[in-house]
Amino acid sequence: MRGSLHDVDGFIIDLDGTVYRGKEIIEGVPETVALLKEAGKRVLFLSNRGNISRKMCYDKLCGMGLAVAEEEIMLSSTATARYLQQNNPGCQAWVLGEQGLKDELIAGGIALAAKPEEADWLVITLHETLTYHDLNQAFRAVRSGARIIATNADKTFPGDGGDCIDVAGMIGAIVASTGKEADVVIGKPSRFMAETALQELGLPADRCIVIGDSLESDIGLGKQAGMKTALVWSGSTKKGTAIPEERRPDWIWDSINDLRALL
Amino acid sequence: MRGSLHDVDGFIIDLDGTVYRGKEIIEGVPETVALLKEAGKRVLFLSNRGNISRKMCYDKLCGMGLAVAEEEIMLSSTATARYLQQNNPGCQAWVLGEQGLKDELIAGGIALAAKPEEADWLVITLHETLTYHDLNQAFRAVRSGARIIATNADKTFPGDGGDCIDVAGMIGAIVASTGKEADVVIGKPSRFMAETALQELGLPADRCIVIGDSLESDIGLGKQAGMKTALVWSGSTKKGTAIPEERRPDWIWDSINDLRALL
Repeated sequence: MRGSLHDVDGFIIDLDGTVYRGKEIIEGVPETVALLKEAGKRVLFLSNRGNISRKMCYDKLCGMGLAVAEEEIMLSSTATARYLQQNNPGCQAWVLGEQGLKDELIAGGIALAAKPEEADWLVITLHETLTYHDLNQAFRAVRSGARIIATNADKTFPGDGGDCIDVAGMIGAIVASTGKEADVVIGKPSRFMAETALQELGLPADRCIVIGDSLESDIGLGKQAGMKTALVWSGSTKKGTAIPEERRPDWIWDSINDLRALL
Repeated sequence: MRGSLHDVDGFIIDLDGTVYRGKEIIEGVPETVALLKEAGKRVLFLSNRGNISRKMCYDKLCGMGLAVAEEEIMLSSTATARYLQQNNPGCQAWVLGEQGLKDELIAGGIALAAKPEEADWLVITLHETLTYHDLNQAFRAVRSGARIIATNADKTFPGDGGDCIDVAGMIGAIVASTGKEADVVIGKPSRFMAETALQELGLPADRCIVIGDSLESDIGLGKQAGMKTALVWSGSTKKGTAIPEERRPDWIWDSINDLRALL
């Protein structure tokens, strides 16, 4: 394990499993984040959540007692709006997903199509109130020529009563029935998500660390982008899990609170 | 094109696009079927419909004025029940699909599991009232070890307002989120569907003809099984469509009524 975090200026912190679990904050996190800021560090909360808006996430974190600015949050929904704005300004989007994503696209300057047939892009995210009608509308968007972009491609998320089917299922339904592949997947560990995070922080990769509970999403993103990485046992990865060489993080902590000793 | 149908004893007839379109019978079909029976031919209606029971289909055909016995109908739902009964008697099934399939499984002697976690098989068919909860229950069945069987794997079906997302979408959602492939797909053009049809008719393949509107499902099934084949333009295949050599049928008709001249 490496020594201190003195030469790290930007802290890219995952949310689910790192800051909170479900509706509960992980003990000590508000104090740890406050310490980071007192030490003059820059902080960005980076999450694959694509079905909520930044505003919704901000309200949730504030409600949990975390002192955070809305600009310190980057969700895959936020990043998806930014991708479309950068790569296809003026495009129209059809959403297979929830209101949070729609809000975030509109906030990011992306117009929502009035009909699926008029969409340039089908944007897919987790949709926990999905119906057959929703699937069929999304199917029609793609059959009418819309390209497919997904906020993320996670297969499962921990929900009430165990693991639940996540965005990968929604993508699979559209891909299998239309024969078209997803053109873009935004979420961690994508290069776009890493670049967006660095842009937000205004720092080079080697002065940043990614802290998260997922070997694939968090450690994967950090290592690919040349950042430092820390795995926490407080979320989906069980303590003691065997870690393949290419995913070995610079630090392994019980929780993000362990970083206090290294500041 | 071949000559007469004198040496053909068994007529395997597709339903959607061959006998009816949506809720309307194709003109002349009741008379044509009556002529076949008067000529001493055996008839079996073979459909990839997996979301209805044989009884429901029988009622529909009778309501359209077609003289048919319930035993002359073989749906992919009926065949799925038979497959499970033959290959895994005593198994428990969880259904991602509608009541018609549940009825048909029960009629075929297959027990429905009380919880997804207890299922040996997840049976997937078209589900036009599907919700996220239904998808998640199916996901949990497979995560708990259930194998996947699908009544068919059609990508689209013609519905109100155009083509609609079909069973392939439902299969895609489960396969992509669980990482498990479908173990069995029952519907046309599968070998099991062909064998089941021949068994019902009690005839060898070379004395049977498949009549349908799909090059893949109907002509594909007939040619693979060594039956004669006739394509009709009355359904999903547009008149004049270029036909690849391996799918070339023995006859091409405007509708099934053209067979009258060959009896």
